[in-house]
Amino acid sequence: MIHVAVMGHGTVGSGVVEIIDKNKKEVDAASKDEVCVKYILDLRDFPGDPHEDLLIKDYKIIVDDPEVDIVVEALGGIDLAYKYTKEALLNGKSVVTSNKAVVAEHGVELLKIAKEKNCSYLFEASVGGGIPILRPLNTSFRAERIEGITGILNGTTNFMLTKMDEEGCDYDDVLKEAQSKGYAEKNPEADVCGYDACRKIAILTSLSMGKTVHYQNITTEGITNINKVDFEYAKKMGASVKLLGLSRNLDGECMALVAPFMVSDKSPLYAVRGVFNAVMVRGNMLGDTLFYGQGAGKLATASAIVSDIVDCSINKGKTIECTWKDEEAVMADDSKKVFNYFIRVKKEAFDNLVKSVGIKEKVVVESVSDEIGFVSDRISEDKFLKAKEICSNSIINYIRILDM
Amino acid sequence: MIHVAVMGHGTVGSGVVEIIDKNKKEVDAASKDEVCVKYILDLRDFPGDPHEDLLIKDYKIIVDDPEVDIVVEALGGIDLAYKYTKEALLNGKSVVTSNKAVVAEHGVELLKIAKEKNCSYLFEASVGGGIPILRPLNTSFRAERIEGITGILNGTTNFMLTKMDEEGCDYDDVLKEAQSKGYAEKNPEADVCGYDACRKIAILTSLSMGKTVHYQNITTEGITNINKVDFEYAKKMGASVKLLGLSRNLDGECMALVAPFMVSDKSPLYAVRGVFNAVMVRGNMLGDTLFYGQGAGKLATASAIVSDIVDCSINKGKTIECTWKDEEAVMADDSKKVFNYFIRVKKEAFDNLVKSVGIKEKVVVESVSDEIGFVSDRISEDKFLKAKEICSNSIINYIRILDM
Repeated sequence: MIHVAVMGHGTVGSGVVEIIDKNKKEVDAASKDEVCVKYILDLRDFPGDPHEDLLIKDYKIIVDDPEVDIVVEALGGIDLAYKYTKEALLNGKSVVTSNKAVVAEHGVELLKIAKEKNCSYLFEASVGGGIPILRPLNTSFRAERIEGITGILNGTTNFMLTKMDEEGCDYDDVLKEAQSKGYAEKNPEADVCGYDACRKIAILTSLSMGKTVHYQNITTEGITNINKVDFEYAKKMGASVKLLGLSRNLDGECMALVAPFMVSDKSPLYAVRGVFNAVMVRGNMLGDTLFYGQGAGKLATASAIVSDIVDCSINKGKTIECTWKDEEAVMADDSKKVFNYFIRVKKEAFDNLVKSVGIKEKVVVESVSDEIGFVSDRISEDKFLKAKEICSNSIINYIRILDM
Repeated sequence: MIHVAVMGHGTVGSGVVEIIDKNKKEVDAASKDEVCVKYILDLRDFPGDPHEDLLIKDYKIIVDDPEVDIVVEALGGIDLAYKYTKEALLNGKSVVTSNKAVVAEHGVELLKIAKEKNCSYLFEASVGGGIPILRPLNTSFRAERIEGITGILNGTTNFMLTKMDEEGCDYDDVLKEAQSKGYAEKNPEADVCGYDACRKIAILTSLSMGKTVHYQNITTEGITNINKVDFEYAKKMGASVKLLGLSRNLDGECMALVAPFMVSDKSPLYAVRGVFNAVMVRGNMLGDTLFYGQGAGKLATASAIVSDIVDCSINKGKTIECTWKDEEAVMADDSKKVFNYFIRVKKEAFDNLVKSVGIKEKVVVESVSDEIGFVSDRISEDKFLKAKEICSNSIINYIRILDM
């Protein structure tokens, strides 16, 4: 018998219990043992809940119970989640989570403890919800040199940008709709400022590079400056605006970025619409592979957690190794980040700006008259930032162009 | 040291040797041992080949050499490939292949021998080329009840259908182009008649159901009847015509089919164009996940083989288990296969046909005058086949409509 303790009886935690119940046959067969939930930790009361008898309020009961094999951390937040995870691992219990904030902040330390204690720390559900992406990075791509990862990693912003694209809505209206549908929080910062996507690309890149990439070192721009005129330009370019998390392995140095990008309709990422997520992986031999699916949602996220529970069950007493090692990745500086930039600039500053950033083509939208939209030459980020500083009052907006 | 023997020095086999050379650092690190190619089996001579010293002509050298750990079967064909694979497994050597014909025909027997001999039989490269799809089915989806698989599994026909869609070409012209580009064989039967896709969906379904699905039991229709008028209708329906391999788990019974389908532009499969492949997996908890990438090509296929070599290396002396078991899947009969059919019928037979199959909507294309195109009610395949038999001289073409 494999004993599981689920910390947190909210959306994700209760989804995990539901799947272990409903797919009992599949879960037990895959685990080669009976998987049973022994405790559910939550400070709240759930009178009448079918699992009321399993509810406890003190996490110590879990970490001190030698019978507990696997702990699901579905608490959210950072400090307590981190503390409980660490204590569970130190007591030799495998921990499984969807908590990207804890993984991005403390992942490498927790992986190390798991290894010392012959247990595992798994977090498939922390990136891309139900999309199996971390396990393939850890297994199927091991023989590849991964050159880059490009992902639509946040369903809320992708829902908003898709609406703006398809219906010509403006930012404030789609944000309101996303909030009313429950996709966006009342304080939508984590989504719209790119913080959520930033944690996820940090985790993906740490796995793909085999080194530690700190999310704090990733340039992160959100979608708050994107408006419907940008989408008119995008349409003229045969493109759409998407919030991407991307990273590139530049001869061993790591280039990583979260920002809105112009994505051409030739890219498979263009077709990723609404709340869906997708991750594209480029291997040096394999070329591009895309993983697409539900990036959030109770059962999709819980399903990824249960697949990790199964892995821990099969590998009881052993550590499932992770490619992510305790060595700092060298981050590429801005001179090595090279893009074409789509830039909207006031007419009077156009000539001057083009002198600094070059021009590949103009993009003409009939509805605007006092500005010029154009695509710059392929230039480095530092060159662009310098030009931007000089012309700052004249640049209306800019969006990098995805070239992979 | 892990000793590998590569049987076949053609496109795929030489690609495997190339990746083991070029990605030596990654391959050895992932394998936790040095991986080295000891033999290359081919009846041909390759004077001047950098690996000329490894070439042998007698497979017995490989199966009798106790030092050989892993055999790559990249011979193609069935009989010899099966014989050599079996002997290698019986001698305790793991075998890795991209040979879908052998896997579909003899997979379950070879998996059984591998298990008895504590070695592995892996075939990630046999479906979807470089797309990691079999390993996720074997691992990430273990806790799911897989309800269905829908795949664009043949790059040649997808290239042809994409051309017909985008450029309004007719079948014979795109076939010639596919042949001149080397995508289609001189005898294109295996691709255009759906036989290749049929083997692949048989393998995918055997894994997803955990039972044996014989490819001979899968209804298989190719694309030879598809012409440019069908694409005019498809456009009116906001769809495109795709050759799909699909299977559904109907309360434990297996429904499987290879045929051209109308795929709506709302489906992520619609955006899969050219030689690319994609596989959509529906789990009962997870919902839909899509895997997309290069379905063929030297290095993509070889990369999938090398990822299997790595797996065999790490699991030396053990069997990597496969969900596919030696139990026959019960195949659903035609009364349980239910679709909407798009049907083109001669005007005079329309009323009569509608009496049998019902009508959801007419589809009007200006360029045709002596026929009527319409979508039937959702009806069972046996009902449709009966109606088709009665009206056979009047039905110009029919294409099932994808509803998942």
